[in-house]
Amino acid sequence: MTTIAILATGAMGAGIGLHLVEGGATVLTNLDGRGPESRRRAVEAGLRDVPLSEVARADIVLSIVPPGSAVALAERLAPALAASDSKPVFVDANAISPETAERVRAALAGSGCAVVDGCIIGAPPQPRGKSPAFYVSGDPDRLTAPLAQHGLDWKPMEAPFGAASGLKLVYAMCTKGVTALAAAMVLGAERNGAGAALRAELARSQPELVGRFAKAMPDMLPKAYRWVAEMREIAAFLGPDDPAALMFEGAAQVYERLAADREAGGELGATLLAGSKPAV
Amino acid sequence: MTTIAILATGAMGAGIGLHLVEGGATVLTNLDGRGPESRRRAVEAGLRDVPLSEVARADIVLSIVPPGSAVALAERLAPALAASDSKPVFVDANAISPETAERVRAALAGSGCAVVDGCIIGAPPQPRGKSPAFYVSGDPDRLTAPLAQHGLDWKPMEAPFGAASGLKLVYAMCTKGVTALAAAMVLGAERNGAGAALRAELARSQPELVGRFAKAMPDMLPKAYRWVAEMREIAAFLGPDDPAALMFEGAAQVYERLAADREAGGELGATLLAGSKPAV
Repeated sequence: MTTIAILATGAMGAGIGLHLVEGGATVLTNLDGRGPESRRRAVEAGLRDVPLSEVARADIVLSIVPPGSAVALAERLAPALAASDSKPVFVDANAISPETAERVRAALAGSGCAVVDGCIIGAPPQPRGKSPAFYVSGDPDRLTAPLAQHGLDWKPMEAPFGAASGLKLVYAMCTKGVTALAAAMVLGAERNGAGAALRAELARSQPELVGRFAKAMPDMLPKAYRWVAEMREIAAFLGPDDPAALMFEGAAQVYERLAADREAGGELGATLLAGSKPAV
Repeated sequence: MTTIAILATGAMGAGIGLHLVEGGATVLTNLDGRGPESRRRAVEAGLRDVPLSEVARADIVLSIVPPGSAVALAERLAPALAASDSKPVFVDANAISPETAERVRAALAGSGCAVVDGCIIGAPPQPRGKSPAFYVSGDPDRLTAPLAQHGLDWKPMEAPFGAASGLKLVYAMCTKGVTALAAAMVLGAERNGAGAALRAELARSQPELVGRFAKAMPDMLPKAYRWVAEMREIAAFLGPDDPAALMFEGAAQVYERLAADREAGGELGATLLAGSKPAV
């Protein structure tokens, strides 16, 4: 049986933990300094709260935290991993750029543990539900294969460390990037008296986009403030030589504007929702 | 019976002309200074080549020319329309910004003719084929209704002059804009070792986008050089206060780069085509 440690336990971490528990793994976590909500989620998922020294004796350690916490978590774990005899493989599964993933690897360089780059695409698993796709890169020896044995939709990439992080970013280009474009389109049309005709034309010639936009807009508005940084991360990933970086700086500003509007009462947001409904 | 004049005869103009002839209209054109290809297309479509003075006696005059020629065509026709007793309604159906449409209207201000703003969305009609959508704005008296009687898919907008031109631009945001995003995504993935995984992930979670991209890329590459200006037109239309304008300046540069690559042998283009094929 494999022992897997997951740090920390947001909805995705808890969901992945639950899925691995259902798949027969022992799943550990460490809840030092976490609030009651994290604690509740971890208990419900069947995760065992243990000290960092025990986390460091697992077979695999998964880091599933907000992007801004990825490096700090690696730094916090480094001493325990260095002191451990069992040297688990450390998998950073966070939505970070390949550059940030390199900083995670650097933080663990002295630990003696293998560090693998990963990313998760899909929704957190529900009880007895489907696993999201769990991509790993920089794992030529397939050290993370036990994840598949315990039910994760494990997808090893034939690619070096960093490629999984890159995959997560490029994938967001066609989901959150397209949503930014669509929001700009609807608002531009409404502002210029072309809203009703645009809805009718999309229904006629792009029906699959209509359903997509109608679903994407209400989902996006409460998250717009978070997506600002994600769009800038994509721009940085593409780099100054790629003109597409400018598209993502623009997308960041589109989300920035929608987030500010939401703070101020949500007038633009309401226009956007009304303008994204399918034509009747 | 309605007499309609169409200037000039690219594939769209000839196709619309053919469709109206099939719908029972008399369709005129003027081929002064046009090449043998335009002449052939006009003859095949059943259009009659007449002097401008006779064009100016039609019931409706349609301008269907490249964006850069819209104002010049209006200026060229202005004297004949001013001299005409029958005062046809002039419809600018070109892919121009509302601002440029205003310049067309200004050029005809002294002619005594009503000027209507229009746009065409869809492919040129084939023999006995389907009409594209023909939107008009700024036509409260429905002067252009005879177009529907002769088979065009006529769509009057309850909106002022300029809204139809705006519609064409916002519609291009979600077709050519999304294609620019998709191209940037595929090239970013290939450059970072994530191409194969991206194709697999899109096939798994975004199958409708896969088909869309596979079709869009080979269609786009030979036209990328033209789309540069279209993307900048959208940026200008959105205006400096709309952060989405930056997305379209970025899209213009993406197309600029692909157009330059094509001139230089098409290495990027080949990567893009290979990376946009559905995963097997």
